Amino acid sequence: LDGKRVIGVDLGGTKILAGIVDGDGHVEHRREHATPVGSQDDLLAGLDQAVEELLDDRIAAIGFGLPSPIDQRTGRAQQAVNIPLDASIDFRTRMSERFELPVGIENDANSAAYAEFHFGAAREANTMVMLTLGTGCGGGAVIDGKLFRGWAEFGHMVIVYDGIPCQGTCTGRGHLEPYVTGVAAAKLAQDVFGPAVDAHRLVRLAGEGEPQAIEILDGIGRHLGAGIGSLVNIFNPDLVVIGGGFAAAGDFILDPAREVVAREGLAGAGDRVRIVRAELGTAAGLIGAALVAFDALT
Amino acid sequence: LDGKRVIGVDLGGTKILAGIVDGDGHVEHRREHATPVGSQDDLLAGLDQAVEELLDDRIAAIGFGLPSPIDQRTGRAQQAVNIPLDASIDFRTRMSERFELPVGIENDANSAAYAEFHFGAAREANTMVMLTLGTGCGGGAVIDGKLFRGWAEFGHMVIVYDGIPCQGTCTGRGHLEPYVTGVAAAKLAQDVFGPAVDAHRLVRLAGEGEPQAIEILDGIGRHLGAGIGSLVNIFNPDLVVIGGGFAAAGDFILDPAREVVAREGLAGAGDRVRIVRAELGTAAGLIGAALVAFDALT
Repeated sequence: LDGKRVIGVDLGGTKILAGIVDGDGHVEHRREHATPVGSQDDLLAGLDQAVEELLDDRIAAIGFGLPSPIDQRTGRAQQAVNIPLDASIDFRTRMSERFELPVGIENDANSAAYAEFHFGAAREANTMVMLTLGTGCGGGAVIDGKLFRGWAEFGHMVIVYDGIPCQGTCTGRGHLEPYVTGVAAAKLAQDVFGPAVDAHRLVRLAGEGEPQAIEILDGIGRHLGAGIGSLVNIFNPDLVVIGGGFAAAGDFILDPAREVVAREGLAGAGDRVRIVRAELGTAAGLIGAALVAFDALT
Repeated sequence: LDGKRVIGVDLGGTKILAGIVDGDGHVEHRREHATPVGSQDDLLAGLDQAVEELLDDRIAAIGFGLPSPIDQRTGRAQQAVNIPLDASIDFRTRMSERFELPVGIENDANSAAYAEFHFGAAREANTMVMLTLGTGCGGGAVIDGKLFRGWAEFGHMVIVYDGIPCQGTCTGRGHLEPYVTGVAAAKLAQDVFGPAVDAHRLVRLAGEGEPQAIEILDGIGRHLGAGIGSLVNIFNPDLVVIGGGFAAAGDFILDPAREVVAREGLAGAGDRVRIVRAELGTAAGLIGAALVAFDALT
């Protein structure tokens, strides 16, 4: 990529992470700002500022990872979660005109998947899917080396017919998300251990051998496995990467997930596919947004 | 496509359909043979014969639609259903060497989706998914005009956690397939109306206003809607096409499916997406296999 540099911006509900990234995925000048959530104008002003303080003559493009399904044809965020950004503005054109540079936009979990594919846990893979387990459950996929630019909202696959309703703007029932996030884990833990217990504490308890904690994580892992099983039968990936804060539950959820995936996958794929934790941590979204910026150059 | 012609072959559990197809999707010399299922050698001999009787100097390539997930990198059928074809042979290379022509292979439902996209119900769409409801439940997708060449085994998405076991070689539970096929419908109908009733008769009864028949089809449609809802959140298609023999149940299953999809889809996609019946009937697989042959030329 000829020594070119781009700016990657990962827009989250509480923080804007931005940095200058080179073609090898190295991040320089990483910065964090609180996300302005007062209005869409405030939010755009905050993003402008985050970009401007990194901008110089060597920057060839800008990429944004947004917490929303994206319509790539119109360049719009279709349903952002927790932040005042909606389809009323053509986000990509607005940013491209503002900075007179090529701009790429992607969903934040798609961006994270792309980063893990190039520089993280999936760098040896050809086809991979990723699930991020945090407050919500995001998804992304890379197919034969190319980022899947559809929605990939894997947290909103139905895995329990007529099951638990989603929260917020999603009206669905029995989606993967409310069964596998840190929020879901905290809820289950609080029923057993009292209101002060969160997902982090639940994982600690499991680590100490507490049987009910292990059982809760086992149930979460089995639901996760049902979702991964569906993805295996759709994408036949070499590798499934689990990221986000609740991935810290590690093998307490991944081992039961592996067991269910072995059962659900066609043609032995459930036994072949590897299920591993993400490697890039909180930088994945920023680096992935930068990769989307590089793609916008070609 | 310069007046070129290809041979399309749709290999099914009981029949081999083959024909010469031009770039406009017109089929000439359509032929049917019984599928030889005695051994893999018999099966290959039957396919050879079906091709040979259509072969002439104007044929530029051959495409095969196979009832199996396909590994496109190795050119092999990974787990064929009901026929003696397995990953022990490099099917694509074998056929390409045999006939000294470019050969493309695809899953049969992927092929049908491709045909409906180019010449059938989805010819106005940009991104579409298809489900075929017959003995089993197959799936295919076209994304931004390009055939999705992954497995797309949408019948094997988990929609009912720990639900009904699959039949045959699939060890999964609660997959879409055992809830939405003609076989599933017949089973439910027989519990109510006695052992002589099949899916066809069930649909007739619903058409005559029989409330229990309508209720059975409603339940099937709602499960179908859960599966389509997952696909909407993954692919954000303009259009969902329902094919296969049991698509004859029409709005008795599609109306309840639409209702559930409206609930499950993110960002209003469940309301926007259109769900329609396939148009090409039993020729879809053959025409799609021909399209895969044309792709093998480029």
